[in-house]
Amino acid sequence: MVWNPEFEVAFNPKTVAIVGAQREEPQSWADFLVNLQRAGFRGRIYPINPKAKDGEIRGLKAYPNLASVPEPIDLVIVTVPAAIVPSVLEDCIAANAKNVHIFTAGFGETGEEERIELERRAGDIAKRGGLRIVGPNCMGLHVPAARLTTWDRFNPKSGPVAFISQSGGHVGMFIAEGSQFGVYFSKAVSFGNALGFDSTDFLEYLATDPETSIICMYLEGVRNGRRLTELVREVNKTKPVIVWKGGLTTEGAKAVASHTRSLGGSREIWDAFYRQTGAVRVDTADELFDITTTFIHLRPRGQGRRIALMGAGGGNSVAGADVCARAGLELPTLTGKTQSELRSVIPTEGTFITNPLDIGVVFRDINLLLRALEPLNADPMIDSIVFAMPLQLLLSDPGQAALASQDPEAVRLEIERQLSVALDTIIRFDHENINGKPLVIVLQPGMDMPVPGLRGRAQRKLLEANIPVYLSLERASRALSKFVQYHEYQRTAG
Amino acid sequence: MVWNPEFEVAFNPKTVAIVGAQREEPQSWADFLVNLQRAGFRGRIYPINPKAKDGEIRGLKAYPNLASVPEPIDLVIVTVPAAIVPSVLEDCIAANAKNVHIFTAGFGETGEEERIELERRAGDIAKRGGLRIVGPNCMGLHVPAARLTTWDRFNPKSGPVAFISQSGGHVGMFIAEGSQFGVYFSKAVSFGNALGFDSTDFLEYLATDPETSIICMYLEGVRNGRRLTELVREVNKTKPVIVWKGGLTTEGAKAVASHTRSLGGSREIWDAFYRQTGAVRVDTADELFDITTTFIHLRPRGQGRRIALMGAGGGNSVAGADVCARAGLELPTLTGKTQSELRSVIPTEGTFITNPLDIGVVFRDINLLLRALEPLNADPMIDSIVFAMPLQLLLSDPGQAALASQDPEAVRLEIERQLSVALDTIIRFDHENINGKPLVIVLQPGMDMPVPGLRGRAQRKLLEANIPVYLSLERASRALSKFVQYHEYQRTAG
Repeated sequence: MVWNPEFEVAFNPKTVAIVGAQREEPQSWADFLVNLQRAGFRGRIYPINPKAKDGEIRGLKAYPNLASVPEPIDLVIVTVPAAIVPSVLEDCIAANAKNVHIFTAGFGETGEEERIELERRAGDIAKRGGLRIVGPNCMGLHVPAARLTTWDRFNPKSGPVAFISQSGGHVGMFIAEGSQFGVYFSKAVSFGNALGFDSTDFLEYLATDPETSIICMYLEGVRNGRRLTELVREVNKTKPVIVWKGGLTTEGAKAVASHTRSLGGSREIWDAFYRQTGAVRVDTADELFDITTTFIHLRPRGQGRRIALMGAGGGNSVAGADVCARAGLELPTLTGKTQSELRSVIPTEGTFITNPLDIGVVFRDINLLLRALEPLNADPMIDSIVFAMPLQLLLSDPGQAALASQDPEAVRLEIERQLSVALDTIIRFDHENINGKPLVIVLQPGMDMPVPGLRGRAQRKLLEANIPVYLSLERASRALSKFVQYHEYQRTAG
Repeated sequence: MVWNPEFEVAFNPKTVAIVGAQREEPQSWADFLVNLQRAGFRGRIYPINPKAKDGEIRGLKAYPNLASVPEPIDLVIVTVPAAIVPSVLEDCIAANAKNVHIFTAGFGETGEEERIELERRAGDIAKRGGLRIVGPNCMGLHVPAARLTTWDRFNPKSGPVAFISQSGGHVGMFIAEGSQFGVYFSKAVSFGNALGFDSTDFLEYLATDPETSIICMYLEGVRNGRRLTELVREVNKTKPVIVWKGGLTTEGAKAVASHTRSLGGSREIWDAFYRQTGAVRVDTADELFDITTTFIHLRPRGQGRRIALMGAGGGNSVAGADVCARAGLELPTLTGKTQSELRSVIPTEGTFITNPLDIGVVFRDINLLLRALEPLNADPMIDSIVFAMPLQLLLSDPGQAALASQDPEAVRLEIERQLSVALDTIIRFDHENINGKPLVIVLQPGMDMPVPGLRGRAQRKLLEANIPVYLSLERASRALSKFVQYHEYQRTAG
């Protein structure tokens, strides 16, 4: 795989032309001029609209057509109605603007013969003119470092994750929600009907992109299955490739036909794809978030299936063990040494330590927690330590008593303070223990917390300290299992 | 099954004695005197503690022993250390107090021989004296109407749901979180090691309890599997019985042994149990909440698998169809008539209506939504209409624009107002359409909402209008599928 300078220009354009830039006040999420301006795009924007009032759109000089733009255009974004797209492509060729993102929908995906023909015609023009097409029927490119985006939600923070997606909605969702999981992007692209570039083209580019170390894909279909398989197998050895295939059910495949008219391929073919490539398989957006945050925050530790599960409550511990086992994790019985060391700090009644550990008491006393972690950390049967933690257990009894008081602000402050102390202690333990077993934290929704947003803040604080956090044990155990499976594959596929 | 007057006394006691009532300031969730007082228990409470200072505990006259209480005791709660429990049981016999809840843990569940023997001894005493034992190692009884509870979280609102649970933690969680799902209790009981009453005893009582119409169970083991099977099959015909069996995995079974030392039974046995009884199977707390709220809010409609799925976004619709199909729901292609009627109100570009329906545009315009609902409601291929709804889509563009404004309070008010209008319209449609297809609403976490708590308020409002609401499509489709399966079973089991 070689570095692809053509993609470099498209993903880091100095100049962007928006053909069909809207003249009115912004009315929709798809006003790309507004979205680009809001994102603080670092290059120059050229609105193209022959009907621009006073020759301006939103403070920028508007041009009647691409040919009149006074400098080379690195990226053209096409937002005109479908019927006009072919003539705009001719304009692109004439203006020597090679990189073209066609946002416009209403092509082959409608299933209507004349629109399928329209897409074919656009494809012929692009091919003749050597245009590099992203789309149509898609949101195009998102590059935080370049302040380049078409989405109305923009996060300027960059990260190691690339997302190659036929769906623009999935990218938008991942941008909006990713930060909650500590996931930030190097580059993302939505490529819709894949008339020009297909997933494999972007994958090849991102494989050598130094800013990308984890690659997520949302695919509805693929043009060249063999090329995808070979490429993913190769890339996956150094950059984990996480693949969400939409439409693997009959009902989903029907939706794919309406959405991007991709040829989905059978479930058997995709089963074989995952087997042959070792790509990480996800089937939902939640799984995508969870495994991605795992690769970011758990690496390179936690590569084994054997966990110690620390929780509170007997029934809760039973449920937790069931959930972990169903996800494919193992809860080995702790060694006699570990058990007797634990018993020296944890009372017998109302607890058990056979793994899962029902030891709510340690969450109420951070020093007890640290003393319980020592033997677990030394137990050779265990790869990772998972806290399934009802947040409010981290609050000591004065905190609980304060809840009954009448000053909600005082209660809030006391809770924030206590939680902060507890999390700081956990973070310190983890950092002083960098060669030990990783801590994995589940911030259970459990019970009602009296301070809105507290869980989110705890999540952020732990993720910033590079401790993986999940919103339920079910999600955590699924992600950990997939993470382990990735490493098992890499070890054995050698 | 006959009405059981003995249970009536225990679940609606006029007098409760707490043996081992704590003298100090409340320090834990397990200070039952405090919990009972906070709940506003309607009867009289007798703290039993020979060391009570000034003969009082928290404003109540304390008694040195059960025999000295001046009236018959309907329910004794035992909280003394395990070793003393046998002598307290002797006191119960002497005082002719028959109903005894033993909270104390540290018996057979520890696996230690002398503690197993202690439990056996307690059992012998109870049997000899004709005591009716709940426990040991459990939280006991929760009856909102009687203001009776041992849990530190109490909700005085009653409802049609009974919960029979070996775990006290699961009951506490359901009390705390149930109200979010519109689930309120007639009676709940945690019975731990089941030395006295077992699940079947409570089930028999609740089968004829007029305040109970839905029965949830969390079981770790069962003493008489045949009796449970027969009873559940019978009760399930008129009151849905939802059974969560903890410890069906090897890891979970190990935890069960430590928690209540129940004999779990193999997975095959439980598979047969579900097959033979038609009980609704759940494997997690989320599933328990979701199916329970479904029985409350969807009954008696929505008994078929064929849904119309209305959502926004192509990739999102593909994902939704996959999720529903995996849960066992069907998305039939809409009739030609329905499709052409929908097309007369919904533009072609960027939408599809083949089911799933990618029609975000209708969520932006409540009148359009109503016009789209009409043909769906008339389509003979469809049993239920499911909205997978990103909340913020219900807000019209002025609302979106307002978000950019600088007055957060004005924004909040405008959003609340718009959402309120949208939900009122949906509720009105549903109520005027009571013989039509039920609406099912998924309030997707999607995107970040600018108003904290908005989703929870929308959820409450819809549930109060008897429209079922779920927090993700995955959870909704699983619950709907189980609900349909229950009714299929009842139709065919005749």
